[in-house]
Amino acid sequence: MSKLKIYGGAASSFVRTVRMACVEKGVDYELMGVGDGSIAALKEAEHLARHSFGRIPSMEHEGFVLFEAAAICRYIDEAFDGPALQPSDVKERAVMTQWISALNDYVIPSCIGGLARHYAFPSGPDGKPDMAVIEANTPKVIAHIDIIGKALEGKTTLTGDQVTIADLFLLPVFFYVGNVPDGMRFFEGRENIGRWWHGMVERESYEQTRPGPPPAQVEKKRAS
Amino acid sequence: MSKLKIYGGAASSFVRTVRMACVEKGVDYELMGVGDGSIAALKEAEHLARHSFGRIPSMEHEGFVLFEAAAICRYIDEAFDGPALQPSDVKERAVMTQWISALNDYVIPSCIGGLARHYAFPSGPDGKPDMAVIEANTPKVIAHIDIIGKALEGKTTLTGDQVTIADLFLLPVFFYVGNVPDGMRFFEGRENIGRWWHGMVERESYEQTRPGPPPAQVEKKRAS
Repeated sequence: MSKLKIYGGAASSFVRTVRMACVEKGVDYELMGVGDGSIAALKEAEHLARHSFGRIPSMEHEGFVLFEAAAICRYIDEAFDGPALQPSDVKERAVMTQWISALNDYVIPSCIGGLARHYAFPSGPDGKPDMAVIEANTPKVIAHIDIIGKALEGKTTLTGDQVTIADLFLLPVFFYVGNVPDGMRFFEGRENIGRWWHGMVERESYEQTRPGPPPAQVEKKRAS
Repeated sequence: MSKLKIYGGAASSFVRTVRMACVEKGVDYELMGVGDGSIAALKEAEHLARHSFGRIPSMEHEGFVLFEAAAICRYIDEAFDGPALQPSDVKERAVMTQWISALNDYVIPSCIGGLARHYAFPSGPDGKPDMAVIEANTPKVIAHIDIIGKALEGKTTLTGDQVTIADLFLLPVFFYVGNVPDGMRFFEGRENIGRWWHGMVERESYEQTRPGPPPAQVEKKRAS
């Protein structure tokens, strides 16, 4: 039996989500780079055969090729033994899907696209983060963190008390929010998120998938 | 037992997807407007209680409130009797999730956001569609339709030969692409998509959920 392969860089929150799913399930996997690691490599034929839209992550398992993090996580949960990453109750399962979908549609665009990405890939003057854009995006980031905080009221995870794929989508996103300069201010006084966070960071899946320094810092080191 | 309620306008492709799921399952539902039908009504407390991010669709079933089309479709499939809208095979189910996710992440933004929306809600000079933007977006629309065409090679549906939630996401999107001026050009000579399309439009779920004239036409009629 060949090892499951995950294609994509460790810095991607989506790649981290599927790696966390592997760790949670106890599934042995190999993290594979895509070509030379450049954006251009994602659009080369070799990778397009793994991901029709030229993005990450994609997965290969014994000849079965799959893309999109939500699909890969569900496959890992259903094709392997190990603790369930989806609730058995129909309503709780629907709530899990609701949060996976809402994180992808709203929270990841605001928290990653609107905030963390601007620090990782600065687009402002002098190669610095564009603070005007970041400040304009900040109210939406806060509003979305408010919504997650309310959703976690009386719970330890997004669906209740079982760690599911939804939590594995959220963790890498809040990790990056917390890592922007003074990023912990977004979470101050938020007991529900704090309780969830402390439960998540105690897990092997958090520690084993911690990304290295963000790409911007890697570039800096290479340049110096 | 109270009837399942779907909140949102019939013109929304996401609302049509969940309505199609109801028809496919034989689930009796009621389509509920949101306030006065305005965008502002989506952000009022009454609707935010049904959808934390103030979007559509949301669902209420015997007190259980849920949002996001993917979650609602899965709930409808799993909570009711009727033909299965998700494959029983693990790999086929993963492929279904892959397409639901990829349609939401790439194809709906290009085909609806980048094309159909510009005709429904014209933003160009003189209240006409902005043709420069539409033309700039067209190569991506074609590239994505190419990908779907390839995915349908040798199949009648996105997962093989069973109509699943993935097909219910795709149908309303290609319906709107085909309905833009000269929109059928996007599908000319595409046998795989033609085969899929002809299978889909024969279904009750297509006919029963056909939206009325697009919003732009409704506005015109009201104004005249």
